[in-house]
Amino acid sequence: MSEAFRAERDSLGLVMVPRERLYGAQTARAVANFPISGVSIATLPHLLTALAEVKIAAALANRDEGSLAPEKADAIIAVCREIVAGHHREEFVVDVFQGGAGTSTNMNMNEVVANLASLRLGGPVGADRLVHPNDEVNRSQSTNDAYATAARLSMVRASRDVQGALRELVEALRRKAEEFAAIPKLGRTQLQDAVGMTLGQEFGAFATTMGEDVSRLAEAENLFLEINLGGTAIGSGVAAGAVYRERVLEHLREVSGLAVVPASDLFEASWDMGAFMLQSGLLKRTAAKLSKIANDLRLLSSGPYGGFGEIRLPALQPGSSLMPGKVNPVAAEALNQVCFHVYGLDTTIGMAAEAGQLQLNAMEPVIVYSLHQAMGLLSTAVPTFIRTCVNDIRSDAERCQSNLAGSSAFATELVTSIGYEAAAKLVMERRPAAT
Amino acid sequence: MSEAFRAERDSLGLVMVPRERLYGAQTARAVANFPISGVSIATLPHLLTALAEVKIAAALANRDEGSLAPEKADAIIAVCREIVAGHHREEFVVDVFQGGAGTSTNMNMNEVVANLASLRLGGPVGADRLVHPNDEVNRSQSTNDAYATAARLSMVRASRDVQGALRELVEALRRKAEEFAAIPKLGRTQLQDAVGMTLGQEFGAFATTMGEDVSRLAEAENLFLEINLGGTAIGSGVAAGAVYRERVLEHLREVSGLAVVPASDLFEASWDMGAFMLQSGLLKRTAAKLSKIANDLRLLSSGPYGGFGEIRLPALQPGSSLMPGKVNPVAAEALNQVCFHVYGLDTTIGMAAEAGQLQLNAMEPVIVYSLHQAMGLLSTAVPTFIRTCVNDIRSDAERCQSNLAGSSAFATELVTSIGYEAAAKLVMERRPAAT
Amino acid sequence: MSEAFRAERDSLGLVMVPRERLYGAQTARAVANFPISGVSIATLPHLLTALAEVKIAAALANRDEGSLAPEKADAIIAVCREIVAGHHREEFVVDVFQGGAGTSTNMNMNEVVANLASLRLGGPVGADRLVHPNDEVNRSQSTNDAYATAARLSMVRASRDVQGALRELVEALRRKAEEFAAIPKLGRTQLQDAVGMTLGQEFGAFATTMGEDVSRLAEAENLFLEINLGGTAIGSGVAAGAVYRERVLEHLREVSGLAVVPASDLFEASWDMGAFMLQSGLLKRTAAKLSKIANDLRLLSSGPYGGFGEIRLPALQPGSSLMPGKVNPVAAEALNQVCFHVYGLDTTIGMAAEAGQLQLNAMEPVIVYSLHQAMGLLSTAVPTFIRTCVNDIRSDAERCQSNLAGSSAFATELVTSIGYEAAAKLVMERRPAAT
Amino acid sequence: MSEAFRAERDSLGLVMVPRERLYGAQTARAVANFPISGVSIATLPHLLTALAEVKIAAALANRDEGSLAPEKADAIIAVCREIVAGHHREEFVVDVFQGGAGTSTNMNMNEVVANLASLRLGGPVGADRLVHPNDEVNRSQSTNDAYATAARLSMVRASRDVQGALRELVEALRRKAEEFAAIPKLGRTQLQDAVGMTLGQEFGAFATTMGEDVSRLAEAENLFLEINLGGTAIGSGVAAGAVYRERVLEHLREVSGLAVVPASDLFEASWDMGAFMLQSGLLKRTAAKLSKIANDLRLLSSGPYGGFGEIRLPALQPGSSLMPGKVNPVAAEALNQVCFHVYGLDTTIGMAAEAGQLQLNAMEPVIVYSLHQAMGLLSTAVPTFIRTCVNDIRSDAERCQSNLAGSSAFATELVTSIGYEAAAKLVMERRPAAT
Repeated sequence: MSEAFRAERDSLGLVMVPRERLYGAQTARAVANFPISGVSIATLPHLLTALAEVKIAAALANRDEGSLAPEKADAIIAVCREIVAGHHREEFVVDVFQGGAGTSTNMNMNEVVANLASLRLGGPVGADRLVHPNDEVNRSQSTNDAYATAARLSMVRASRDVQGALRELVEALRRKAEEFAAIPKLGRTQLQDAVGMTLGQEFGAFATTMGEDVSRLAEAENLFLEINLGGTAIGSGVAAGAVYRERVLEHLREVSGLAVVPASDLFEASWDMGAFMLQSGLLKRTAAKLSKIANDLRLLSSGPYGGFGEIRLPALQPGSSLMPGKVNPVAAEALNQVCFHVYGLDTTIGMAAEAGQLQLNAMEPVIVYSLHQAMGLLSTAVPTFIRTCVNDIRSDAERCQSNLAGSSAFATELVTSIGYEAAAKLVMERRPAAT
Repeated sequence: MSEAFRAERDSLGLVMVPRERLYGAQTARAVANFPISGVSIATLPHLLTALAEVKIAAALANRDEGSLAPEKADAIIAVCREIVAGHHREEFVVDVFQGGAGTSTNMNMNEVVANLASLRLGGPVGADRLVHPNDEVNRSQSTNDAYATAARLSMVRASRDVQGALRELVEALRRKAEEFAAIPKLGRTQLQDAVGMTLGQEFGAFATTMGEDVSRLAEAENLFLEINLGGTAIGSGVAAGAVYRERVLEHLREVSGLAVVPASDLFEASWDMGAFMLQSGLLKRTAAKLSKIANDLRLLSSGPYGGFGEIRLPALQPGSSLMPGKVNPVAAEALNQVCFHVYGLDTTIGMAAEAGQLQLNAMEPVIVYSLHQAMGLLSTAVPTFIRTCVNDIRSDAERCQSNLAGSSAFATELVTSIGYEAAAKLVMERRPAAT
Repeated sequence: MSEAFRAERDSLGLVMVPRERLYGAQTARAVANFPISGVSIATLPHLLTALAEVKIAAALANRDEGSLAPEKADAIIAVCREIVAGHHREEFVVDVFQGGAGTSTNMNMNEVVANLASLRLGGPVGADRLVHPNDEVNRSQSTNDAYATAARLSMVRASRDVQGALRELVEALRRKAEEFAAIPKLGRTQLQDAVGMTLGQEFGAFATTMGEDVSRLAEAENLFLEINLGGTAIGSGVAAGAVYRERVLEHLREVSGLAVVPASDLFEASWDMGAFMLQSGLLKRTAAKLSKIANDLRLLSSGPYGGFGEIRLPALQPGSSLMPGKVNPVAAEALNQVCFHVYGLDTTIGMAAEAGQLQLNAMEPVIVYSLHQAMGLLSTAVPTFIRTCVNDIRSDAERCQSNLAGSSAFATELVTSIGYEAAAKLVMERRPAAT
Repeated sequence: MSEAFRAERDSLGLVMVPRERLYGAQTARAVANFPISGVSIATLPHLLTALAEVKIAAALANRDEGSLAPEKADAIIAVCREIVAGHHREEFVVDVFQGGAGTSTNMNMNEVVANLASLRLGGPVGADRLVHPNDEVNRSQSTNDAYATAARLSMVRASRDVQGALRELVEALRRKAEEFAAIPKLGRTQLQDAVGMTLGQEFGAFATTMGEDVSRLAEAENLFLEINLGGTAIGSGVAAGAVYRERVLEHLREVSGLAVVPASDLFEASWDMGAFMLQSGLLKRTAAKLSKIANDLRLLSSGPYGGFGEIRLPALQPGSSLMPGKVNPVAAEALNQVCFHVYGLDTTIGMAAEAGQLQLNAMEPVIVYSLHQAMGLLSTAVPTFIRTCVNDIRSDAERCQSNLAGSSAFATELVTSIGYEAAAKLVMERRPAAT
């Protein structure tokens, strides 16, 4: 076995690292310490990209300060650009469930970058590498500002994925609203026959409501652009030089293309989870709306005979292993379940955010993971829903018409002329009998 | 103002207490400290009853031990019996939202009992009372065992209220199941036409499911009968004598009529909130089922024309301020909302239970309050739902029949003879057109 | 008994109404239908005020349209102003848990206003009143726009209460931050000794974080100012005239002083609960932060001997019924519990928002109630917390100093000079032994 | 591309299936319909095992009935036994997020078994296979009873995994309790110095509390053993013969080794999610306790200098990328985060359970997935926590002693002799000063 591993040493002693891997001692420890979900941080591409960008910005600022040799800075920057471009992702092996407030994620990055930079400078991987993960790649940083900053930038990008998916949904719903614009139907409140409207108005409302969520998510990006980089461990900036602190955000703005600004209170920004909670609240709101739409589509397509029967969802697959010819609203049901999961993740995030103590929230990894899970699911589920459901919804105009015609919708039109009570009497006389 | 108040003194100094009130210094402090919800512990009758019973049991055991003068014990017991009987409830004025892990509730009881006992012994109320709230009424107890024990006993009784309400619901639903036993109708899965059944079977399932919850709640009582009385502050029994500790549970069994047993590990029992969480989980389960039934009733009564229309809920009130003759399923909607509130309380309880630290859970008051709120709401909402909704549900047998007849339910009967695929073909040919 | 009641009639038949009450048949029905929590809508003053303002605006617009006699409009307006001013609140008797999507609340208002207006015009109360609750007070409105609009306006005002309370908290925390500005102490991450900071910086971060929530809540007001008044039952504006619809918002802006704007899609606005969910998410965020602060204060004041002991919270009441001289952080604990309740209410709201169906969300009453409960609790709990806790927190500068001096905080300062690994070695040598 | 695929046909038409796969048309449709999480049902081994067992039992009962040719039954049984043994798992490719109430999972199994059985009988894979997935593998079953039954059996086994992990934890904690039995320390309530105890008692309470959860989980197994197999689509047993229905449970008992019993009301059992909710409530309870223990360990090990410092958790990895020599409680933090995730999953489950409609709960897949995720995480996280944390916790007996000695714990011992108030005075005089 000794051949398959190389020996490394960190402040706690000797560690065996798989010979062919580019990470180092602390990553190897983390792998042994957190064999929990089997889901690694490699599944969080936005996070890795943003963390590599932070490393680039830090290297540039450290070079400006003169505390990092230019050739090492350049090597660090070059390999980080490779990571940004999507390479080396298989080296990110730490579990998403991890203690240490993101330190293992940050050290996984520091070690991979250090080894790659060493190779690039003609040095070896491992104990004798030419670039130090802590003193050089992580120079002037703490997990508590570097990871925290990367987490926030990754939120902006994941949020844009969701916004893109929702924007497509808005368009798909608008197309349906136009298609159904001339189909009169019964409006219902509290599931009871109410007054007339068009099927287009019903779908138009779906489009409107999702459009609002695109706006809310876009607004919330600003909160994530307020970062604590330069604050290091607890916000005091200990171990970071003045030039570095002055320059690092400017570099990060350029590297990331995101308009980051310094938090006004770095001590607060070191532990505050407010932006994550707000984002989670918005995603729960999006989930509530999507689930409501899924519920409505299932209701409107119920039957088709013994239900509302006003629309027909596409027949995606035989609906039953037993009942022949049954077609179920499976796309809508899948969306509902994703939405319930997003609700669940909001609970997780709410618990974790409350659990912060003193100068840090050690539970940030589960918050970051949960938000990425929520946004990742919405980003795949919504386009799937558009493709497998929304685009091919058809109307049953005849049923729409007959549901309307048989109902008491006419009576409300009479209120202004004959008054509420006389109109009510008319309706009561027409109600179908029951026993 | 001095005339309306009397001066008392506790370990922190002087306190002014309203002259005509029977509580004392610490209660007065608590009133000033927690002006939060305006809802006092007087709204938790089961808790006050149980706490008075604990005081009786403790007085008996202290008398057995010889650490409490018999005449004082008798006076304490006599006034506690009055409280058990429902008297003096207006003296319990502390807010349900209170810090101190129940100490203010316990001291409110200790002070009221001390003053009442003093009066009974011919003494005064206030500073010179003949009975001491801490050294005599609370003798051999800590809030952490006395309040904790009372909280558990109060759960058993509140749970029985819920069980009683649910049992009535089961009976009401069974009556409907019998009434509707001969009405054939369409069964639906995923809101789509499935196969035939009777309306009686549908209501019978509602009865069955609620009956199961009565059983689960009854089983859970046992967990609350495991108590930590005698453990005092943290489970070590400090400040409680051997005779007292040996006798107090026996007395409590007799006084309360509940088969309490000592927890096997008093240290654990001092902080463990497990029984409360389990109860809250059960109540959430009950809420899920009730809400599902309410949803089904709203669905089955939807329309009445442009919906399922198979049953008719009683017309309790005009359904709309604008739409004449509209009748809404308001009883079911009210039940839904109560159920959502019970869900919310489970979140509160889950947060509070996790927040316990070391030898105590300081958040027990909000747990106890939340459970009583959940059980209180269910205990009023369920009978209301029976009276205003279930009892007067009528069927529309004609609509039931037509929904069934027009559907594809026939096809599943053919599967065993002609096979799944041939049967599916038959159904597909019959599906109503859509565009 | 006949003498104590008067007979009224609505579209469902005869109803007996208590003779001395100003409400009418439908309110009486609702009282009988919803005896659930015992908490009436009179406990929601902001809601009643806003609903009365909506009635004023509607009366003005109906008068403009010529569909409501000027003298009746004037009478309606006059009595609504009395309600806005806080009178007649005892006539609002419907339970906060109610089916019907707010119809009972709206009808309670319509009936009280109709009777009061009748009295003002010299007419009687009851069946022969001169003003009709539906056809005149509720003219051109549906619950679905009138109640929905009032609910939104009431949110703005309740939110301002919370913002006011939080602003006071920010100031109180800032004062403490200044008072403690010169006290050096140990910063901690993950509860472990980290690096130095000042106690003032710790309190300053608390102030900063709460200040951000004031901003977020203020921003969210805009979402509530987008209203659907004029949309009536489902957004189509059925039964509302053109002049009315053109004028009613302008009148409401003037009457309420709030800059309401029409929703862009009235069909969507009739059922969308998005603004409520966003508000609830923000309040949960506020609760998370408040709870975190409470947790930190409890931690920093722990001991006082066998804990962190760096600050001392005011001794509000004897901490234990058994342990003499114990002082507990009861104000912080009460705040924690309020926060857990706010979390719970967010669950309730999230469930209810998802439960909307088709053209309406019938669960809006529990959403509105829950938000008012959350905001009401925060509005009382926060000022209580300031008064009973924050203002009188004292520091133990000596303990702060000794905790810092004995820790490994010095080592991070050495990183830039001697490197991470050498500094780590120094710390490891100093760690206290354990077995 | 045509070469890599084979054409199949189901009731909706032609489907292309990857040539080398053993699943069929409906699985291929499901793969296209649900590209949502990328997590397939192959990650739920207990579910696949149980579903294969159901297929075996059904084949046996169908053979008994004479409705399935013995050689086909034998082939089905043989290949299902291979699946039970863990083979062919890579053929289970449907996403865990799926609409259709489990139909896609059931059909994935039916198709894989049909093709494998065909191969075994010397036939081909695909359109011309000798065994029909619906009419033979799924004979006498609906997803609604076959999948539902398998889901329940899978719960029992996953629960036993959790119970096993918790049992190990109890033992590990008991060992520590014995090791620390003679170390006196300060007990704390509300984080304030209370009275003396031993460190062994503190750890013993942890062991006790987790032991109780093993019992609760074991009790709950019974609820899952009540199954609806034989009820087919909605509980009426349509398409299942009398002999089959009489025999199938007996066969399943034998095949699975689990003492399954028939649900008393098959209609109710077809839609009821009560057992799942109860299980989720129990797991949340377990999570609350585990999180509380993690919190306590983090608190007791806080410092090590400027905190409680009474125990030392093992140094698993350097604690900080910046602060040298810092050791963080990372194992406990990881456990906390797992627990918060379990809380979140309970929210998901609670939403999904409430969303059932009429004769089925279409959201069962997300319930089943969420419970398996919760139980899977606990089953890996708890043993990890034992190995990386509990087993190597060391005590700092000196710090334990000094924390106790300096505190006010002595005073409670004096209560019975000198009384509460005199003892309180003593303590107040000793409290450290603050300003």
